[in-house]
Amino acid sequence: MKLINNQNIMIVGLGLMGGSYAKALKRLDFHIAAIDKNPDSIEYALNHGIIDEGYTQPDETALKKSDIIIFGLYPGIFKKWIAENQHMFKSGAIITDVTGVKSCIVYDIQSVLREDVKFIAAHPMAGREVYGVQNSTEKMFRDANFIVVPTDKNTGEEIEWCKELGRLLGFINVTVLSPEEHDRMIGFVSQLTHCIAVALMTCSDNTHLADYTADSFRDLTRIANINEVMWSELFLLNKEPLLADIDRFMNELQTIRNLLENDDREGLKAKMRLSTERRAAFNKR
Amino acid sequence: MKLINNQNIMIVGLGLMGGSYAKALKRLDFHIAAIDKNPDSIEYALNHGIIDEGYTQPDETALKKSDIIIFGLYPGIFKKWIAENQHMFKSGAIITDVTGVKSCIVYDIQSVLREDVKFIAAHPMAGREVYGVQNSTEKMFRDANFIVVPTDKNTGEEIEWCKELGRLLGFINVTVLSPEEHDRMIGFVSQLTHCIAVALMTCSDNTHLADYTADSFRDLTRIANINEVMWSELFLLNKEPLLADIDRFMNELQTIRNLLENDDREGLKAKMRLSTERRAAFNKR
Repeated sequence: MKLINNQNIMIVGLGLMGGSYAKALKRLDFHIAAIDKNPDSIEYALNHGIIDEGYTQPDETALKKSDIIIFGLYPGIFKKWIAENQHMFKSGAIITDVTGVKSCIVYDIQSVLREDVKFIAAHPMAGREVYGVQNSTEKMFRDANFIVVPTDKNTGEEIEWCKELGRLLGFINVTVLSPEEHDRMIGFVSQLTHCIAVALMTCSDNTHLADYTADSFRDLTRIANINEVMWSELFLLNKEPLLADIDRFMNELQTIRNLLENDDREGLKAKMRLSTERRAAFNKR
Repeated sequence: MKLINNQNIMIVGLGLMGGSYAKALKRLDFHIAAIDKNPDSIEYALNHGIIDEGYTQPDETALKKSDIIIFGLYPGIFKKWIAENQHMFKSGAIITDVTGVKSCIVYDIQSVLREDVKFIAAHPMAGREVYGVQNSTEKMFRDANFIVVPTDKNTGEEIEWCKELGRLLGFINVTVLSPEEHDRMIGFVSQLTHCIAVALMTCSDNTHLADYTADSFRDLTRIANINEVMWSELFLLNKEPLLADIDRFMNELQTIRNLLENDDREGLKAKMRLSTERRAAFNKR
């Protein structure tokens, strides 16, 4: 199982991420087809040479010749789409995805999927605060992490295939996590930070302070500009790990608040020293 | 009262901020002297042409000829320094500062200051995650806000003088706030965000996640690399507004947490829509 440049790739869901995959892979001379229910997205992608073929609904002829199918759909739709359309897949096809939550998706799909088709999950940890194929760009992969998320059903060969895909797309860092490890990680580094940014914007109307903000505030709330349909779905699908993260964070903030209330300067300094020390691990390498 | 290029400027406290003031003002042909108790800082600044004269303790001759004195000291030391050394100031001198909290400083200093010397407070809202004159650069003023913080004791002429100083330093945005308005604003846009970043790093040891972080997490925790001496002092000096901000933020995060626990998708989406709408006001203009 190798990625060969003349293979046919089908992208289902041609949004920001699907479009960015299409751009990166087309440059490598793969043949790219796409299905998206929005005719504007398909028309834009065809007119701009992002894809070679486009459809606004599942097309049997196109799917039958697809060696690789990449799903850029929201989690809920994704499962339904597979159930309804997998009879059209080519025997021996390999499927991957871009979904931001894994435990609730990967096992379900693998359990209903045809025996002669393989699904190896992945999470390209890249994004922008804008949406749609019109804003897609493979540049967003350059500094980003690509996580392959296999289950026990996946072979070593499938895992290697998916790692190679991440490297071909241009990700700087390609790693492997189990669905459960992935979801705990994403709860902390991505979903909790989005909850915090939203709470900071909604806790009071502070828009009159816009003239006074420092970069710290701007950086922290960049992600407060948020796609509510996608993120509410991601939060709810990763509810248990995310609730645990929010609670752990709030307990700690309460502790810091109490140090402040009690004028405990040394206690505050100890927290700041620990923070500085740990943050050093996150500097870009 | 005008800023004239051949005036003598004294900078007391030659750290990151004092050094950056020195660089910006020296380029405009002011004569720059500095006092800092650290001989390495003075030597570095002299060797690199950042200042014209340097002292490691208050120097009467140098102070007596200083038309303008700029204080880059921590708040606690600042008040003490004025009380002990103001007898050396030139009659008619004007004083300003860079302190990050105001109510607890400005009134005290104005009440003990000699009648023939004026103090007009300012807060240059710029910073870096590194310290010392060695890292100073006037570039950090370019995208930043300069806030003049007068009291009833300050004349319109003093306020205009300080606004002009902010513009000369290169700040893109120069505004005026009362000490109380300033402290409420800074509690929310700066101190609360620093508390959040620290709590996110200290709530659990997540350094093993460094390989998986997205930009959102990196941006949000950039300020978790924090000078514990300065920030613990700033937090304690602005305790009441900051405690109110932390409580307001935690209540809101608790509300969002409960929407998630109760599977209230529409409630989550409404919060995200409000967040997105408000965040638009903070985009750089």
